[in-house]
Parts: sequence; structure tokens; C-alpha cells
Amino acid sequence: MNYFEEHQADFLDGLKTFLRIPSISTLTEHKPDIRRAAEFVRGELESAGLAAELIEGAGNPLVYAEWLGAPGKPTLLLYGHYAVQPPEPLEEWKSPPFEPEVRGEDIFARGSSDDKGQTYILMKAVEGLLRTSGRLPVNVRFLIEGEEETGGEHIESYVASKPARLQADAAVICDTEMFAPELPTICVGLRGIVYAELHVEGASHDLHSGVYGGAAPNPLQAAAEILTALKDRDGRIRIPGFYDRVVPPSAKERAAWARLPFDEREYTEKEMGARELVGEPDIPLFERLWARPTFEVHGIRGGFTGEGAKTVIPARAVVKISTRLVAGQLPKEAEEQIRAAVRTACPRGVSAEVKIVHSAAPSLVNPDNRFIQTAAEAMRQVFGKETVYIRSGGSIPIVGLFDECLGIPSVMMGFGLPDDNLHAPNEKFHLPNFYRGIQAVARYLEMLGA
Amino acid sequence: MNYFEEHQADFLDGLKTFLRIPSISTLTEHKPDIRRAAEFVRGELESAGLAAELIEGAGNPLVYAEWLGAPGKPTLLLYGHYAVQPPEPLEEWKSPPFEPEVRGEDIFARGSSDDKGQTYILMKAVEGLLRTSGRLPVNVRFLIEGEEETGGEHIESYVASKPARLQADAAVICDTEMFAPELPTICVGLRGIVYAELHVEGASHDLHSGVYGGAAPNPLQAAAEILTALKDRDGRIRIPGFYDRVVPPSAKERAAWARLPFDEREYTEKEMGARELVGEPDIPLFERLWARPTFEVHGIRGGFTGEGAKTVIPARAVVKISTRLVAGQLPKEAEEQIRAAVRTACPRGVSAEVKIVHSAAPSLVNPDNRFIQTAAEAMRQVFGKETVYIRSGGSIPIVGLFDECLGIPSVMMGFGLPDDNLHAPNEKFHLPNFYRGIQAVARYLEMLGA
Repeated sequence: MNYFEEHQADFLDGLKTFLRIPSISTLTEHKPDIRRAAEFVRGELESAGLAAELIEGAGNPLVYAEWLGAPGKPTLLLYGHYAVQPPEPLEEWKSPPFEPEVRGEDIFARGSSDDKGQTYILMKAVEGLLRTSGRLPVNVRFLIEGEEETGGEHIESYVASKPARLQADAAVICDTEMFAPELPTICVGLRGIVYAELHVEGASHDLHSGVYGGAAPNPLQAAAEILTALKDRDGRIRIPGFYDRVVPPSAKERAAWARLPFDEREYTEKEMGARELVGEPDIPLFERLWARPTFEVHGIRGGFTGEGAKTVIPARAVVKISTRLVAGQLPKEAEEQIRAAVRTACPRGVSAEVKIVHSAAPSLVNPDNRFIQTAAEAMRQVFGKETVYIRSGGSIPIVGLFDECLGIPSVMMGFGLPDDNLHAPNEKFHLPNFYRGIQAVARYLEMLGA
Repeated sequence: MNYFEEHQADFLDGLKTFLRIPSISTLTEHKPDIRRAAEFVRGELESAGLAAELIEGAGNPLVYAEWLGAPGKPTLLLYGHYAVQPPEPLEEWKSPPFEPEVRGEDIFARGSSDDKGQTYILMKAVEGLLRTSGRLPVNVRFLIEGEEETGGEHIESYVASKPARLQADAAVICDTEMFAPELPTICVGLRGIVYAELHVEGASHDLHSGVYGGAAPNPLQAAAEILTALKDRDGRIRIPGFYDRVVPPSAKERAAWARLPFDEREYTEKEMGARELVGEPDIPLFERLWARPTFEVHGIRGGFTGEGAKTVIPARAVVKISTRLVAGQLPKEAEEQIRAAVRTACPRGVSAEVKIVHSAAPSLVNPDNRFIQTAAEAMRQVFGKETVYIRSGGSIPIVGLFDECLGIPSVMMGFGLPDDNLHAPNEKFHLPNFYRGIQAVARYLEMLGA
């Protein structure tokens, strides 16, 4: 039994302590918890033997730590985040979101998979190597942030300032998932995002639908007009120019995706609880999820939504929308395309304004890269199966930022599972993946330094 | 100075007492206030000299009172309602909604115009005649209800049971408005309504738009598809068959409407605070408002509408909708037409269910009717101007019920004004209309009994 097998109970205890901190980044009342979580990460890295500090700025603190005692060896930038999504709706949790509970082989808590559990894998792998050999096979810099779930303005401006202390050969990000249980997976592409609010305004005040119905503009109906103008019934985006720069996956990548173990019925009925899958006809599922842009409406505020009946024509409506962007698309251009499409689609009698909440570039790395090839081999050795390459439909803005500002590729070694309930009640992390993840990262560092 | 001029201060005091009772019919916590308001009405009618009582049943009590001491003379059924709409948003009221305040010639309070102030006109006219001559020129029955704003199940079942005590020659309803200040107005038509909720369901739980966007059904987008399928950009309803039974106004009525004093710019910019009027092209405004059906969305619930960004594909959405119906349309048929249209419009991957909240038939009375002609003459004498005939775009379900169950026409003598802010903050009632309304109703009873 090696060090990593011996210390599983310690790893679990430490993770529980981390998960008990309700570091919800979207709510200002949790500012003290955000700081406690950052301090926890800093403290653990320091006691592991790294020089660690908090980097203050606008927004939540960044945790930076470094160990640079391997001259001539590669330098890795290890990224994770300590902030989590809000836990609501609370009544749907089987155990409280910030009281981690192990049931079977899973640990249930908000942030267990996204991303405290995975961040902790990086921390414990480095700690283990330092404890067992007093040194690391490569140089490492940790950059752990607290705004990934809320736009990440602080890390964005920090990385964009290109500080010398972020100089590295590659980034390692543990914030994605394995394609299936036991199947080692590296994610080579992410979708970007443009998240926006659509503000639709009609009359200056709410109007009675009996008195004014037939003459008054209705911002909710106008919002529906705009939404259906921007996306058709089949799921095709109708924003002019939106697909122009989309780079299709290669034939090799398409073929690899077609070989992935996948049960569509299980996915549709069990995982999603849906009647059927929707989206662009004639485009295979993984291409729709990973290599095609989306347009989604997340919420509509306006008018009367209480119990019973109120016959109001509301004065205004706010619609939360986002588009996911894929390789080739440019966030700034997409923002302008959305604005132009909304202008064109806006019906008579109302105004419609697009307010961008945040944007992030898509990313795609070449799997032939040495850092990715080595990671795939390290995971293969620990998990005992050939590593697969997938993309993810989600957005990790930092990946685009590392590429653009630091000129380094990101190695996305993910240890989550598709049913981890990210951003939902009963989020969990599969503990065998947690323990093997720590070993796989340690093995990766050893192989890179060899 | 006659009795009615002498007692204006008393009328105002009594009205203020009535308005101070927060008899909000949509909220269960106001049940005691509902009863207080009903008791207030009963007490006032009793002390005026009528036999008065509360009629209990499912829902809020009805107030019934009668004076039948004029054998051989017509019997009028006088209708009003003591329950009011919720006052929210409270912060927009200049004075508290249940602390009536006179500013200039207006009294501000929830219910001042709709409908406590107008109900009180009927009560004080009858009281005045009884106090001055000890008797009434006609027989009267009062029926004052507490559910007009919430569907009126109690009065509906009561009237449908056709009790002998509701036998009358005509109903008089004070719950509409004058077309313009100083312009005596009788309303001869009302739109009906079908109010419904549209329940749209996709996956069994909320899904992350990064992970599932491109495959998951989105109930909010589906709701937008349904809304735009049911009504086009120009305001035409696209529910199959919806216009088939619509009876157009006569040439004479259209010509009278075209002569009404009206400043479209004032109406659009000042009254509504809108950029422009919308609705079916090539159909004149008053016809759109009074003689054409509408389809309106009142509110959409579903997804994330808080501050910031949450990338959720919601599992479900609830949409509050209504259609106004015009002469010729049948509520039950309209309900079925809506259900069928929603079935047809429902996109793949979601289910859409229509739940009817309440319905009411439209109504249209012949202005040549003796009871209406006499009312028009009484109002002309008191206001000193020729009475105009209009319709109203709103719905007063009781009018259709009186027609259908009791076989009597309704005389809608309204004393509200278009800018009374019904169902909105700062509802007000114009006091000169209040005082003249009392005189006009008293004069009407005298002329009918002569």
C-alpha cells in the first residue's frame, strides 16, 4: 500500500472540512465564507510545503502558491476554484448541502464535484509527493479562484496582466468529468459563452388587459417574438452569421465520438428525465453538445406569476439568455450578432435592450500535445483503461484566458461523473474517482519530470 | 341646495370608512376584512331603511337588501362589489392604499373607483330618496358581492339558482367608466374572458445549459413558441376558429365611436406612457378595444430570474394567459379552441397543459331598451351633456349571468374615469363624479317610477 492508499481517510477528512464552508460566490452575505475557503486552501498548501498567499483585488481573493525547486523541469500551472453555486432549492437535498455526507461510494455536498473535490485532488497530489520525497518532479504554481461561478472578473484581470509568476508550460485543470464511470477522460474542447439579459419595455406602467388589450404593447409577448426569432422550432439558431465561423469537428474526432460507450435511452430517460432529445436535426448528439453553439433562455421576469388571476399587461420584462460558443466563434462578435438580431426581431411598440452579463471564449487544444499525451498515459496507468478524448459543452473561461494571455495549453483531467448533479440539489462526488484522481495527478507529475 | 348637495360631506365620510377596510379578495389573510366590508354594506343599507342580510355560501358573503314598497312599479337589481384588487406594488403609492386621501378633486385609495366608490353611489342614492320622501319610486333589490376580482363563484352559483328574490326588470351596475370627464356615458357591451394557465414541462429536473444545451428541451423557449403561434407579430390571434363567431359592430355604432372626443396622442403618450399603439392593423382603435377578442400573456414563471447569471435549463414553466371574448363568442368553445391551438403549437420534447382559471361570457345590450334610454336621460339632466354609448373592453361576468339566468338587461351607468388607475397603484375616484353619480341614480329611479 503506497502513501496515497494509506492516507485516503485523511484526504476524506480534509475534503469534508473544505465542503463545510458555504462559500457561495453569488451571494454577498457569504463574503466571510468565501474568505474562509480561500484561507483554508492557502493554509493547506502552505503546510504541504509551498509558499502560499492570497492575492487581493476587486472581487474574491485568489489563492496563489508555488514550488519552483526543479530547475530545468517543466512548470505547471494548477487551477481550481473554491467558490460554489447556490444550493437552492434546499428542500430537494437529502442531506444538507454544507454538511457533507458519505452514502455508499459517494460524498454528497455542494461543491463536492464542482469544484472543491477536484481542486483538492491537485492539492493532495502535490502534498503527497512533497511528503514522500521532500521535493516535486516538476515546478508547480497553484492558482485557485473564487469567482468561477460568477464571471471571474478578478482572475481575468489578474491573468490578463500577465504576471511573471504565472509563467508556465501548461495548465492543469481539474473541473471536468469522465465520460463514464471507470473511463479515464481528457477534455480537449470547451464551449464559450455569452450570457445576457434582454430588457423589453412597453408602456410606462402596468396596464389592465380589459381596458387596453388590443392597443397596448405586451413586453412578454414581444419577448416571445424575439426568442422565437432567434431560434427556430427545430433548435437552429437564426441569429444572422452565428454559424459562419463554426469549425466542424474532424472526421477522426467524429469517429472517436461515435465509438464512445453510450446508451441514448438511459441518457434521455434516466439522466435527464426527458421524453426525447431535441436540437438541430441531422446533427449527431455529441456534435450538438460539444461542437455546435446553443441559444437558451434561463428565466423570464415580468408580470403577474402569483396564485390566481391578475389581468395585467406588464410594463416590462427581463429575459435571461445565453449562447454557448464553439471553436472559431468570437465572443465580441457574437455579442454584436445577438444585439443586431434582437434589434431586427423587436416588435412594434416596445424597446429591447441587450445587457451582456459575461462572456468567455471557447477553447480547443490539440490532443497531440506532449502535456496531454502524458496525462492520458498517467490516467491509463492508474485507471487501467485507455483514456478517451472528449469535449465538454460547458464553459471554463479560464482555459481561453490561459491560451490567449499566457500562451499555454490547458490539460483538462476531469474526475467528475455525468450524474454528479452540478449546480443542482444533491451534488455528489464519486470517492473512488477522488482517490484515483490524486494518484493520477501525482503519477502525471512524476512522468513529466522523468 | 337639495338633500344630495347638502350631504356631500357625509357621503365622503362614509366612503372613507368603506375604503379603510382592506377587503382584498385574492388573499386568504384578508378574510376577516372581507367580512367587515360585507357587514359595513349590510349595516348601511339597513340603516337606510332596507331589509338587509348576508348570504353565506362557498366563498365570500353576498350582501342582499330589498325595498319592495312600490307595487306596479318596475323592480331594479342594483349590483356592485365590496372586494378589491391587491394593492401591490406598495412602494409606488403616494398615500397608503387603505388610508383614503383627498388630493384636489380626487380621493385616492384602493377600491375608490373599482368598485367601492361606485357601489356607494347606488347605496347613497337609495338612502337619499328614502330619507327625503320616506319611500322609493321603484322597487329595488341590492346584490353586492365580494368576489368580482377573483372569479365570483359564489354569486355565479347563487344567480344560477334563480332565487325568487332576484326577480327584476333590469339590473343597474355601477362598475364602468365615463368616456371622458364631464361626459355622461352608458356602457352597452363588455368583453368576456377566458383566463388560463399554461403548464409546460420538459425534463424532470433543471439541467445545466453547458452540459445539456443542444439536447434538452427548454420549456421557456417552448412557451415562447406557443405564445407566438397563438398570436402573430401584428396582434392577430391565430387560434383556429377564434374569430368565426365575432359579431362586428353596426355601421351606426362605428359612426358613433368615430365621433367620440378623443386625442390619440394624449391617450398613447400620457395615459399609457407608450411609444405607439399596437394591435390588428386596419381595425380602428375602439373596435380593437371593444369589439375584437384579445390574447394576452400576463406573467411567466420558470427558471432563474434573480441577480446575476445562472445557466439553468428549467424543468418547467407556467404562463398566465387570457383572451377577451366579444359578442358572439362562447367561453366554453373558446376554451376548447385554446386547448386545441396549444396542442398543435406545442414543440417536441415538452408537454403543454392548459388549466382554465375562470371564464365569463361577453355581453351586448340594445341601447333602445327603455331602462337604458331613461338612464341616459337622467344622466343628461344631471351632467348637462348628451349621454354617449360606448362599450368596455373589460369583463364584468355578472352582466352575462343576469342576462342568461335572470333574463334581464343590465344598465351600466359608470362614473369612473379612464385615468383612475384601476388594479394599479394610486387608484383614485373623481369626487364630482361621485356626487353627481348619486344624484343621477336618484333621478333615474324617480324617472322610472313616474
